[in-house]
Amino acid sequence: MKSTMMDRDLQIGDLLRHGQRVHAGSRVVRCAQDGGGSWSFAEIAEHAERLAAALTRLGVERGDRVATLSWNTREHMAAYLAVPSMGAVLHTLNLRLHPDQLGYVVRHAEDRVLIVDSTLLGLLGQLRDHLATVGHVIVIGAGVLPELPGHIHVHGWEELLAAEEPGFRWPEVDERSAAALCYTTGTTGDPKGVAYSHRSIWLHTLGVSCGNGAAMTDRDRVLPIVPMFHANAWGWPYAAWLAGADLIMNGRHLHIAGLASVINEERPTAVAAVPTLWNGLLHEGPEHALDLSSVRLAGCGGSSPSRALVAGLKERYGIRLIQGWGMTETSPLATWSAPPRDIPEDEDVDWLLKSGRLMPLVDVRVMGMDGTEQPWDGESAGELQLRGPWVTGAYLHTENTADKFDDGWLRTGDLGTVGPGGWIVVRDRLKDGIKSGGEWISTVELENAIAEHPAVVEATVVGVPDPKWDERPLACVALAEGATVSSAELREFLEGRVAKWWIPERWTFLDAIPKTSVGKYDKRAVRRLYREGEMTIEIGGKAT
Amino acid sequence: MKSTMMDRDLQIGDLLRHGQRVHAGSRVVRCAQDGGGSWSFAEIAEHAERLAAALTRLGVERGDRVATLSWNTREHMAAYLAVPSMGAVLHTLNLRLHPDQLGYVVRHAEDRVLIVDSTLLGLLGQLRDHLATVGHVIVIGAGVLPELPGHIHVHGWEELLAAEEPGFRWPEVDERSAAALCYTTGTTGDPKGVAYSHRSIWLHTLGVSCGNGAAMTDRDRVLPIVPMFHANAWGWPYAAWLAGADLIMNGRHLHIAGLASVINEERPTAVAAVPTLWNGLLHEGPEHALDLSSVRLAGCGGSSPSRALVAGLKERYGIRLIQGWGMTETSPLATWSAPPRDIPEDEDVDWLLKSGRLMPLVDVRVMGMDGTEQPWDGESAGELQLRGPWVTGAYLHTENTADKFDDGWLRTGDLGTVGPGGWIVVRDRLKDGIKSGGEWISTVELENAIAEHPAVVEATVVGVPDPKWDERPLACVALAEGATVSSAELREFLEGRVAKWWIPERWTFLDAIPKTSVGKYDKRAVRRLYREGEMTIEIGGKAT
Repeated sequence: MKSTMMDRDLQIGDLLRHGQRVHAGSRVVRCAQDGGGSWSFAEIAEHAERLAAALTRLGVERGDRVATLSWNTREHMAAYLAVPSMGAVLHTLNLRLHPDQLGYVVRHAEDRVLIVDSTLLGLLGQLRDHLATVGHVIVIGAGVLPELPGHIHVHGWEELLAAEEPGFRWPEVDERSAAALCYTTGTTGDPKGVAYSHRSIWLHTLGVSCGNGAAMTDRDRVLPIVPMFHANAWGWPYAAWLAGADLIMNGRHLHIAGLASVINEERPTAVAAVPTLWNGLLHEGPEHALDLSSVRLAGCGGSSPSRALVAGLKERYGIRLIQGWGMTETSPLATWSAPPRDIPEDEDVDWLLKSGRLMPLVDVRVMGMDGTEQPWDGESAGELQLRGPWVTGAYLHTENTADKFDDGWLRTGDLGTVGPGGWIVVRDRLKDGIKSGGEWISTVELENAIAEHPAVVEATVVGVPDPKWDERPLACVALAEGATVSSAELREFLEGRVAKWWIPERWTFLDAIPKTSVGKYDKRAVRRLYREGEMTIEIGGKAT
Repeated sequence: MKSTMMDRDLQIGDLLRHGQRVHAGSRVVRCAQDGGGSWSFAEIAEHAERLAAALTRLGVERGDRVATLSWNTREHMAAYLAVPSMGAVLHTLNLRLHPDQLGYVVRHAEDRVLIVDSTLLGLLGQLRDHLATVGHVIVIGAGVLPELPGHIHVHGWEELLAAEEPGFRWPEVDERSAAALCYTTGTTGDPKGVAYSHRSIWLHTLGVSCGNGAAMTDRDRVLPIVPMFHANAWGWPYAAWLAGADLIMNGRHLHIAGLASVINEERPTAVAAVPTLWNGLLHEGPEHALDLSSVRLAGCGGSSPSRALVAGLKERYGIRLIQGWGMTETSPLATWSAPPRDIPEDEDVDWLLKSGRLMPLVDVRVMGMDGTEQPWDGESAGELQLRGPWVTGAYLHTENTADKFDDGWLRTGDLGTVGPGGWIVVRDRLKDGIKSGGEWISTVELENAIAEHPAVVEATVVGVPDPKWDERPLACVALAEGATVSSAELREFLEGRVAKWWIPERWTFLDAIPKTSVGKYDKRAVRRLYREGEMTIEIGGKAT
């Protein structure tokens, strides 16, 4: 039996109009370091209308990719709204990728227009050889233009928009058509494209907005420190726009002093950042007189925060750090870790350290190494697989991705458990997890435990072959300047912090741990150094 | 360009599973008057599984209508979940309708199964002649069965479910198929059916759950006093299930003493009720030692609350009464009236008296009497027309409804204005509004102003022909027992409360105002009494 309801597609254009008309007076704020000032949602929407008119004049058609190489700015927000609403596809370029990878992404996506912050013109120059499909570059702000191929027309954002009229007539759009495009960071192989639909963005936005989620209201002031160039800044810009929450744009300023002053001046109620930045705010905050008293919601994602960070923020600032877990492929949020009701106060941090509780419309299953589905008992580990309307079911124009999906489920490549209540704990990347004597050791948990030692600045753990246990952990540690600690002391430190049989026998001390282009520990490089005998290994304990 | 996202339908089955697994420990509570006790979401979901198995055994197929004649109970909640999830259609029967209308509804919907509370077996008996399509009646609780047609099989709820196993395998369902069915109350003509889809219910549930909406969390305890047999109790049961909020079921107990004890004992954080009941709680609360301190969210809908009610609740209980506006045709919520930020304290009540702010995904337009769209200026009145994915675009199996829709918009039949920010003020039913000298007089506002006089118990206003102004208001008033007040005094009382030219010249005093079967003032009856000269009219003032 068919329903009688209106069959209206979910469209970013309707999201744009909601913020424009219902929250016309809410504001997008520019941080003082970028000159300050603020613009009403009505003004931002007018920018979006002018941008759409300009892009139309430049020949952008339905389905065309319009790329952004940009920080968190009001212009980026206007593009977030305009490009999908006009039926084109917003392609946010992750400026942290290696220029070769970024160039690959521009070519693969066949971007037609590139909107670039003037502070990133140098990077644009490095992409010079990859711009065959790009007909137009739009530069936000003033800067020295790099040498670009002759076929490219360059425009200034301000002049381009000033030449247009507001009042663009947004077309009707199929909710299953692509609205936005992100590429994975591609630590193995080429980056792969995920094309979000109007439908998936709307549903993700509503999911983020739920009471058990970020629950933004028009009384909030939202500071997404997480960049808009990566996984849509966790969907917070769209959620804030829907709710009429002020959006505070910190531009390219990611040093702690700058962030502290943005927070002190703009008094955000909701802040989203990766653990590294929260760590910086915790430890360097006092010297910048950081005041976090306005923050009702502190979101954290990208990697797992350490217990020291979660406990420290709670103790010093009274802030409960809430984790979101997800990835480019999942829009990105699949979980949110607000602890459930009736948790004893002394278990609070334990709950905050979990990767989060399943969001509405997202389903998870744990597939054990033997290919069977595992129970939600919080113990049985396996690959976490996801399904839902904001989870990708394919990669853009990419063959041979069968190993990324399993019977309609996305293989996240994360190793973890699901507990009662849909509480997910990610224990490792599947490829990093260590199978020792038939049981999993979580390198993430080991790393966090080691990093709690005051002398340790960086720690990573990789699996290395072991004659008796198949695989055992190798701990790689960088110490604070002037600090000294022995592997025996570290082994002793770990006792009681992790299972006894997890404690590594093999230790190496490095000046710094190798990192990838996006700043993560480069475990492949660590394994290679070990394999090639380029490390000094201390061995202790009884496991070997 | 197509997106890469999974194309998974929105399905009530996924909603069921979310509450069942993620909020397994949240509870559905039965009020003490019905015997008390509570059931976990896991247990309710198991009831739903058994019910679906039983209905399948009784021959219920995809698209079949399963009707409920029931109060707010845990069994009703199980049916809310089971019937749509199995692909059938939940038809909630509005037991307040006249039995002839209710019989029409059962026949029109071609209900195959009827689930009935034993307290409503008398009403079921009155429907005896309308049950040709009904093959099975399932009785919740014990009671004396009325005489029913011979083809009907009668089952006891407990026995029926006990005979089944849990673990029903929910099928995949097209999100645009019908999930639930409600009929309008049909004050003019026959009731008309609105068939909600899985999609529309999911989107409405997410909309209700947003930060600017009810924003329920798993820390809430939700008491929807509004009945589940009418417009899905504003979608609160589904929203509470999604959020893992406890659901408190007050059964058939709608007297103030009973409600006060439910509230005092169960400590709800969110309560939804019509103005009449809030009025009762306000005025009779003290004699029942009513304690509303647990309530963070007080929702109100169905008709406009008076200023006295809103101000009174705020003053006595510190509660801000939030309005939702909508109707069966809109799932039902189209607006929610949480005042926007930065409202001066002394304007708070003015904002609460508005009908609310547009919800996400809902769009409104104001169509003036001349057929042109009016601006959102809070002044220009006209018919409110709505559009959105949880707004109906047709009526079930009903011809000749062209006058209910206008170019893809639902004609709500409500007369009102839209202000900046999508703030809707409903001023009247279009057919009740009075056009005096070319300008609208709102009978609702006039009625509320008159009702503020302490001597007045009931007040309604209808338009009557006037030689000079085309139409003028006639005020019909019922006074409190023993009270005396003259029309001249009431006219004087209105000065300053409404525009001078609104003040009625014509007044009549009745013992009670005629009411419809659902307890609303019956303006048609009032007009007929006037037309037929069966009223004593006092005339004063200068307008005539």
